[in-house]
Amino acid sequence: MSLLNKVLQGDVLAAAKLIRGLEDDLPGAVAELKDLYLHTGKAHIVGVSGAPGAGKSTLLGCLIGAFRKRNFKLGVVAVDPTSPLSGGAILGDRLRMQKHGEDKDVFIRSLASRGWKGGLSRATVNTVHVLDAMGKNVIFVEAVGSGQGETDFARLADTSVVVMVPGMGDDIQTIKAGIMEVADIFVINKADREGAESLKMSLETMLEMNPCGREDWKPEILLTTATEDKGIEELTEVLLRHQLFLAHSGEIEKRRRRRAELELTMAVEDALRRHLATVDGCYLEKLVDELAARKTDPNTAARKVIKLPPTSPFRKGR
Amino acid sequence: MSLLNKVLQGDVLAAAKLIRGLEDDLPGAVAELKDLYLHTGKAHIVGVSGAPGAGKSTLLGCLIGAFRKRNFKLGVVAVDPTSPLSGGAILGDRLRMQKHGEDKDVFIRSLASRGWKGGLSRATVNTVHVLDAMGKNVIFVEAVGSGQGETDFARLADTSVVVMVPGMGDDIQTIKAGIMEVADIFVINKADREGAESLKMSLETMLEMNPCGREDWKPEILLTTATEDKGIEELTEVLLRHQLFLAHSGEIEKRRRRRAELELTMAVEDALRRHLATVDGCYLEKLVDELAARKTDPNTAARKVIKLPPTSPFRKGR
Repeated sequence: MSLLNKVLQGDVLAAAKLIRGLEDDLPGAVAELKDLYLHTGKAHIVGVSGAPGAGKSTLLGCLIGAFRKRNFKLGVVAVDPTSPLSGGAILGDRLRMQKHGEDKDVFIRSLASRGWKGGLSRATVNTVHVLDAMGKNVIFVEAVGSGQGETDFARLADTSVVVMVPGMGDDIQTIKAGIMEVADIFVINKADREGAESLKMSLETMLEMNPCGREDWKPEILLTTATEDKGIEELTEVLLRHQLFLAHSGEIEKRRRRRAELELTMAVEDALRRHLATVDGCYLEKLVDELAARKTDPNTAARKVIKLPPTSPFRKGR
Repeated sequence: MSLLNKVLQGDVLAAAKLIRGLEDDLPGAVAELKDLYLHTGKAHIVGVSGAPGAGKSTLLGCLIGAFRKRNFKLGVVAVDPTSPLSGGAILGDRLRMQKHGEDKDVFIRSLASRGWKGGLSRATVNTVHVLDAMGKNVIFVEAVGSGQGETDFARLADTSVVVMVPGMGDDIQTIKAGIMEVADIFVINKADREGAESLKMSLETMLEMNPCGREDWKPEILLTTATEDKGIEELTEVLLRHQLFLAHSGEIEKRRRRRAELELTMAVEDALRRHLATVDGCYLEKLVDELAARKTDPNTAARKVIKLPPTSPFRKGR
């Protein structure tokens, strides 16, 4: 049976092999992706972002339990390099996830250990595709909050959850406008700490001031204490409700189109990078020498390197 | 006379027009650049970077005076959006530069007012080329220090000056390794403030620990108080000495090659951007629709968009 067929049947070893191959950019894996992609788009993708220490991993551990009780097949992609899910872990935190380690319907994959550069990578998107093709119903993507990248992660997700903590500087001044626009659900974790209610009120005020054009879904604000499993059922219900909302309102189509746009952009950049890798190094050296000696100019040299159709690059302005 | 010929004869209005045209990406200006580039590579390019408030503009004002006394023709490109040279200025600071405003051998051009996005832009590089072709002997590029971008600015310059201030958090912990590697000259400005000597000692220690493979040029550390014109002569002499060092050691060839590499990279990215701008919007929409509907995959769609030679994109790995 082909690797792809094994993945489509939910084979964990085959999936791990394919993900590894995609990370390593092996031609065989890239070729498999082409067919695999056509089998994706079924899973509900939930982005979970927040600052390091917000308790995202503990929260995810609880959510996995809640969704497994409802018989969902789950995937988790951990992109946060500080996440206990990502390997560089505190043992106690790892153990909290471990209970799902034996469960064949939970597939946890960390990407952070292989050199995290910040932002959304193609490896992350491709890992989500593999989990999707495996037949997972819900895929959680755990990402560290870091400005611009956060918005990209939200573009990848169907539902975007932002996790905050009272008294961690997560106050109104530090909440980036981008986050307000992309978050579907705010979770105030460690809600037993002082300041949880006032953070909630601040968020509510801010959401009223920035309705962000959403008429149908008002972002929910939930209080949880993941270490005590508190608020998890409520969060699970809201996640399911948001999934229904997306399906019934037609919003899911918009989000999947937005994701396709993002992927096309990433694929174009990737194709260029791959193309440049195939250009003869000596030829590049020669071009640089010619530039340094002012025998040619950068635009002419660039056109030689990427050989775009001659009519296109300089016919139009911006 | 053509615009290019006027620029080559040092015509200020023609240069301003060409710079504006390049910023606006006008096809005529881009075409001129092709020939203009062949007349560049003569000026000595000095990058001056540092945090906002380090006194870069005042320092530049003094340096302009010192270099004009020696009869150099000067160009200044201000990229720091917080710089008084860039327009959004405090009147007092502007006046400090004004005295050179009447001098036809000093050409000051601000790029920041037209939407600064951070980092080194092609508009900056092209402006330097225009000033170079005009016959300026020394071109100062004033850039705000901001991590990664700083290293790019240093790659643009022949001589890289980093300006620091005592007690502004410019201590060893905050000095990025990248800066240590690219700076040829450190200026501790506002040296009348407390902590100047200890900052100097910290820098010296750090330079000893990180010799950065430079065998011939040990980065100089200078103390200045630009508001009182103190230390400017010494700095000017070190700048001239570094220029001689570059010429005699052959290091200048290496740096110009490095700059050519940077420009080629920027030109390739630019060509791709221009190409994408010429792709029919409806065609892109259709591709995104096909992706969202899983009728094609991102890599196949990307190849349709950029039409790279079919052999190249996926033949090799990284």
